[in-house]
Parts: sequence; structure tokens; C-alpha cells
Amino acid sequence: MSVRRIETSPRFSEAVVHNGVVYLSGQVPEEGSLRDAKTQMESILSQIDGLLARAGSNKSHLLSATVYLTSFDSYSAMNEAWEAWLPPGSAPARATIGNVTLAKKEWLIEIMVSAAVL
Amino acid sequence: MSVRRIETSPRFSEAVVHNGVVYLSGQVPEEGSLRDAKTQMESILSQIDGLLARAGSNKSHLLSATVYLTSFDSYSAMNEAWEAWLPPGSAPARATIGNVTLAKKEWLIEIMVSAAVL
Amino acid sequence: MSVRRIETSPRFSEAVVHNGVVYLSGQVPEEGSLRDAKTQMESILSQIDGLLARAGSNKSHLLSATVYLTSFDSYSAMNEAWEAWLPPGSAPARATIGNVTLAKKEWLIEIMVSAAVL
Repeated sequence: MSVRRIETSPRFSEAVVHNGVVYLSGQVPEEGSLRDAKTQMESILSQIDGLLARAGSNKSHLLSATVYLTSFDSYSAMNEAWEAWLPPGSAPARATIGNVTLAKKEWLIEIMVSAAVL
Repeated sequence: MSVRRIETSPRFSEAVVHNGVVYLSGQVPEEGSLRDAKTQMESILSQIDGLLARAGSNKSHLLSATVYLTSFDSYSAMNEAWEAWLPPGSAPARATIGNVTLAKKEWLIEIMVSAAVL
Repeated sequence: MSVRRIETSPRFSEAVVHNGVVYLSGQVPEEGSLRDAKTQMESILSQIDGLLARAGSNKSHLLSATVYLTSFDSYSAMNEAWEAWLPPGSAPARATIGNVTLAKKEWLIEIMVSAAVL
């Protein structure tokens, strides 16, 4: 039942593993990936892949996801990238919320997920 | 520690069970239940009941809930339906957030819960 | 795998413990702590401390946090109080979302966390 933290700063850990579950921080697009919602999603999903791997999990084991959008204008592009990324039959529980603001004005999307660690 | 998914589409699963916890997708009102916040809540709570049952849980075992409102104008109606629905002594941890937009303009409320599976 | 609830009202429980994890309700500032974002954070963090203690946990064992802000104008004060409060190396996974409304107009911040119970 110990807790393992990955990429811990004074403000947050990118991932925290406990009791067979990994909790990821809200992932946002990297610098250089800000052009549009599709590009932002690809950056976000790539970062989720990397963090899940470091936690001993992967995108087939997602449990839950909360998708935050600054506007539902990004909804179609977000869903398209999301569905292309997910392995068949492995979609997590999800909620999608719009009209939020995020820490940087350029960010259109932030996604927070949890996943099973096997 | 295996993962069981209920009503899985390419985009999300309505429920995901892992390690004694079921995570539900954000539940929204069904077509035909859009008249007002009270009617929307009744539809949402009924769907939560159905999904919890399929996961081997029920509303006495709720752990956590996030209630998303497009406006706090729906707050009273939401709470009234919520409290009528919950068995005494079984309320989950909860946060309620307003001023969000949801995937369909007619939706006033979306609720995401987790529950213990016994 | 039983569920333990702390400070349960008909609407929510301040904390729910299950399977080695405690889920806290969204914590908001107490009356008398509404002056500014810094004061509100100190009240929120103090309440989190108290509830974690009652659940058999503490701030060294945080797993995940969602920070809701009415405006990112509170972001710096929130982060400053947050980082002063967290023990070194123990930051949880976190997402921060702005532009929401909360149940009372005076509230600038609501924080929902989960933590490991040892």
C-alpha cells in the first residue's frame, strides 16, 4: 500500500501509483504543439502514454478520464484523436466539460486520467 | 486486479470496474427528460442506478461524486432530487461546479460518480 | 472492503474511506476566511488536514487533487499556499481548472483530494 510518485515537483507529481491504480496529473500540450486542438491532443496523448509506461501501465488499462475543454469548438478534434488513440474495447469512463480556463492561454485541452497498474 | 468494462464504445465505457471500485462516465439526461433540472436529475439518477446494478454495486456504496452544472440556477432542484434519492447515511464525497458547458446545449447537469463494489 | 463515512449529511460526506483510499468532498473556505485567495487557501488546507487525520491519513499521502478556481487571478496565491503546505516530495497528481462558479459567491477556490490511508 505504499505510494510511488513520478516526476515530483513542489507543486504536483506527474503520476502517483497506489494500490494498483495510477493517477496522472492533468496533461496539457507541450510547447511547440499548440497550433490547433488536434496537435494539442496528440501531444497530450503522447505524454499520457509515456507516464503510463513509467507507472507500469498503458492505455489499454485506463479506468477514468476527465476532459477539460476551453470550448466545445475543440470537441470533434479531441474525440477524433482520442478514438484513434484508444485500443478497441478499452475506453475508460469519461466526462467532458467545457468553458473552463487553463493555466496558459494557449492551452485548449487538459486531460486527467487514472489507470490500472497490473 | 483485472478490469471489467460495461457498455464500451470507441469513445468511453459507461462503467469500469477495477479492484473493488466502479467508475462511471459522466451521466447526462436521456432524450425525453430534458424539460427542467428536476426531470434531468431524475433521468441521471436512474441511469446511475442501472449502471451501478450492472457493476454489482448500488447507491448505498457511493464513494465520490462530481456534479457539473451549466448554472447554479439548477442547484436547488439538483440537491432536492439528489437528497431524495440517497439512502440515509450513505452520501458520497461531493464537489459541485457551475458555469460549465456540456456536449449538448439542452443538458443542464452532468454527474460523475465512483462506488464500492462489494 | 467496507466503506467508512465521516461527517455525513443528507447531501454529502466530508470524507469516505474505502480500500485504503480516502476521498474528500470539495473543501471550501470557512466563514471568516473569505478575505482573499491566500486566506481562503489557508482555511481549505486546514480543513483538508483535519479530515485526513480523521480518516487515518495526512498530507504526505495525497494521491490526486482537483483545484477549481473562479478565476486564474487566484492562481499565484493558491500555488504559494499549496507549495508551502505540502511536505517535500509528496505532491499529488493535480489538475487546476478556472472560470467555474461555486455554491457561494464569496468562494474563490474549491479543492477535492484523495489520499492513501495507511
